[in-house]
Amino acid sequence: MIAIVGGTGPEGSGLALRWARAGEAIVIGSRDAERARAAAQQIVEKAGPLGSVEGADNATAVKMCETVVLTVPFAGQAELLKQLKPAFRQGTVLIDATVPLAAAVGGRPTRVLGVWQGSAAEQAAEIVGKNVQVAAAFHSLSATVLNADGDVDCDVIVCSDDDRARQAAADLAVKIPGVRAIDGGKLENARIVEAMTALLITLNIRHKVHGAGWRVTGLGI
Amino acid sequence: MIAIVGGTGPEGSGLALRWARAGEAIVIGSRDAERARAAAQQIVEKAGPLGSVEGADNATAVKMCETVVLTVPFAGQAELLKQLKPAFRQGTVLIDATVPLAAAVGGRPTRVLGVWQGSAAEQAAEIVGKNVQVAAAFHSLSATVLNADGDVDCDVIVCSDDDRARQAAADLAVKIPGVRAIDGGKLENARIVEAMTALLITLNIRHKVHGAGWRVTGLGI
Repeated sequence: MIAIVGGTGPEGSGLALRWARAGEAIVIGSRDAERARAAAQQIVEKAGPLGSVEGADNATAVKMCETVVLTVPFAGQAELLKQLKPAFRQGTVLIDATVPLAAAVGGRPTRVLGVWQGSAAEQAAEIVGKNVQVAAAFHSLSATVLNADGDVDCDVIVCSDDDRARQAAADLAVKIPGVRAIDGGKLENARIVEAMTALLITLNIRHKVHGAGWRVTGLGI
Repeated sequence: MIAIVGGTGPEGSGLALRWARAGEAIVIGSRDAERARAAAQQIVEKAGPLGSVEGADNATAVKMCETVVLTVPFAGQAELLKQLKPAFRQGTVLIDATVPLAAAVGGRPTRVLGVWQGSAAEQAAEIVGKNVQVAAAFHSLSATVLNADGDVDCDVIVCSDDDRARQAAADLAVKIPGVRAIDGGKLENARIVEAMTALLITLNIRHKVHGAGWRVTGLGI
């Protein structure tokens, strides 16, 4: 069972939709359990009969699951993780998709903030502590594309210092039709992948599209 | 005529090879004019009859050309540009491909240094001043792939604050078979594209290849 904290937003809902269609059991987390249940119901209607999607407040969602995906705006990431820390089970895999867009402080969504730990994902790892294994992934998938029906023409670059967390993120990535999981090395590399999402926002604006993405070439895979 | 400063290195030589094959006239620049001429001769032998490649010391190469491509290690970039500044003609387009890899100071090639101006390209722009228009491009093309014969399965993301410089870089990019030129917005975005090259080095290491690259998807082009 997979918790998606911030799952009522377009990115989290899009991931939930794709994973439900792949037969996964999903818990949408939100500050407001009612709002989470309403979002879950909408996703169920789009997803069809295969998986399951329910809603809960964030802490309950985290307690229920051994895999937690975090899709929240950067402005709320640290505070939320501090609140949720006691809810994580020992050995939970936290997959962080947070991008520290400067929009968090009134700046442009095409720029990233410098995060003291190096990246939003490393900030997340510092806050949740050693009982939780962190991978960074799913930054670059367009919410517009995820919430539509077609294949997703984008690779997911996974950065982690923990093999189990890296594998959990990769396994979830390839459940999305069209997506490949690419081992992006250590968690510290999340700072690059996060910034690449800000560049995708530039590309979306410059090219008047909503679904710019990245593919890695030349890997012989 | 295109000057490639640092053109005796693998990246510069590979670009020269591809552009010569496309019929361009190239001047390889090096600190040592003899070394530049020897490198030019080697490239001519590989390139075949179409374009022309000659060699000169860096300052002479810069004086000869309205387009200058800079492919040097970050450790030498600032000092070299300060020396070359008087050689640039008014209105020269400088295309900077420098990546501020931490290897410049004995660190890892999978990490980038923080550059005060934001990126190596913005540092270049500050040094050469307003008489020279700067674009950042060609960071991500594998030297191994450039120096081989096949198509290059990689996009070139061009960042610039100047339309003419952006266009000059894009025009050169598409002369390399397989390459697309992607408008990456302002010069400040070079900090992301430069870091993406450090991530390619991680991908090359992790996947045991030499030619990892990037394609942008979802642009409808």
